[in-house]
Amino acid sequence: MNSVSDTGAPTALRLYERDDCPFCWKVRLALAALKLPYESIQVELGEKHPDVIALSPEGRSSVPVLVDGDQAIWESTVILEYLADRYDTANQLLPKEPELRAKARLLVTFSDQIIGPGLRRVIFEKRSKPQDEWDMSEIEQGMQMWQNRMAELETWLAGEAFFVGGRFSVVECALLPRFALAYLYGAGVSQNTPALYRWFQHLKNSSDFLSVAPATVPQYGGYHIPQWGQQRQSHRLTQSDC
Amino acid sequence: MNSVSDTGAPTALRLYERDDCPFCWKVRLALAALKLPYESIQVELGEKHPDVIALSPEGRSSVPVLVDGDQAIWESTVILEYLADRYDTANQLLPKEPELRAKARLLVTFSDQIIGPGLRRVIFEKRSKPQDEWDMSEIEQGMQMWQNRMAELETWLAGEAFFVGGRFSVVECALLPRFALAYLYGAGVSQNTPALYRWFQHLKNSSDFLSVAPATVPQYGGYHIPQWGQQRQSHRLTQSDC
Repeated sequence: MNSVSDTGAPTALRLYERDDCPFCWKVRLALAALKLPYESIQVELGEKHPDVIALSPEGRSSVPVLVDGDQAIWESTVILEYLADRYDTANQLLPKEPELRAKARLLVTFSDQIIGPGLRRVIFEKRSKPQDEWDMSEIEQGMQMWQNRMAELETWLAGEAFFVGGRFSVVECALLPRFALAYLYGAGVSQNTPALYRWFQHLKNSSDFLSVAPATVPQYGGYHIPQWGQQRQSHRLTQSDC
Repeated sequence: MNSVSDTGAPTALRLYERDDCPFCWKVRLALAALKLPYESIQVELGEKHPDVIALSPEGRSSVPVLVDGDQAIWESTVILEYLADRYDTANQLLPKEPELRAKARLLVTFSDQIIGPGLRRVIFEKRSKPQDEWDMSEIEQGMQMWQNRMAELETWLAGEAFFVGGRFSVVECALLPRFALAYLYGAGVSQNTPALYRWFQHLKNSSDFLSVAPATVPQYGGYHIPQWGQQRQSHRLTQSDC
């Protein structure tokens, strides 16, 4: 395959992404966990990048899009599956056992399809308007949806340090950005869900997380993330100028 | 594992499903391709089945849900991945090569997320109202979205008989129900996309397709499907009375 050198390391992974997009962040966490270098091409919120349009089905211009040689992949979960299939020889991101793989995929779906929509009600409201125009009812409903999910995740975590297989997996790749964004937009994790609380306290200070966290959340008044985002160049190549 | 006998065959696959739901039909096609027997429990449109609620995350009551021993899986794509991991030793549903697996998963996503929403505009309108109340503008927009996708699929098919790996795969499981529903609701495949036309003509008469097609589309005036649905008991056990 053209994109892989003789040593098996990829020579040209390219990620079209937005810094504070949770689906992009999810892919960055997977790339960091596998220690795969890549070229990051930043796409602004609302921007229709010509490369992204050319690489995606008609009418779609969203990120992330990963390019590996001739292969373009335009959906975050499919990107993670590809990285696991192609580069994860140690089954770091996805365990081997079918039952655990199903659990991991259900949790990724839970994060993307169930946690995400509730959280977006808070984020879209806060980042799109000045504070005195926020629809507090919309924000409160989103916050309530967030809180309702915590007990379910606590059950799923079952007192462990990680959700599946005793290690950082695709589940953490999907969930961590949601928790980080929730935290930045005012929705925390309380000690009423103690395992989940410990899980986030531990992982939000991990080196892989810090290496790929956005430096700021620009649409929310340039909110600066203390500590997060300072080490982020460690897994990245120079940004392309295209 | 409790659900598997000494011979490796599953002893108790149970599928909560609705006959004309494309996501359920997708799972039935995968089960048929792998020749896995299962117990089918029919859930009506809009019904909140207590088992489905108990097996799903809070607030979710949609089908399909597959139960295999202690494992409940509530998302069609995750169900297909599980069946591939657990029972597809010959790589029938998903090829081995990471590039082809990515292509297959992108096409499943294309079917679920891009073809589905356009088609639903037609189906929801037609099945929820008497014909003289149909919103023709809504239907025409849905039909246009359907037509726009045909050229993309023709490119992806590239003149072959199947989308990925030269055989029936998860891609056919996802796409065939969409094409069948489109056909039933008045959106066909024309010979302007000749490979796609041949693909559907061939597969809509295949035994696996016929074995799991719904006998009628009940919400659309009890539309009877000629030929389809007559052989459907072949892969099914007796329906549970729960």
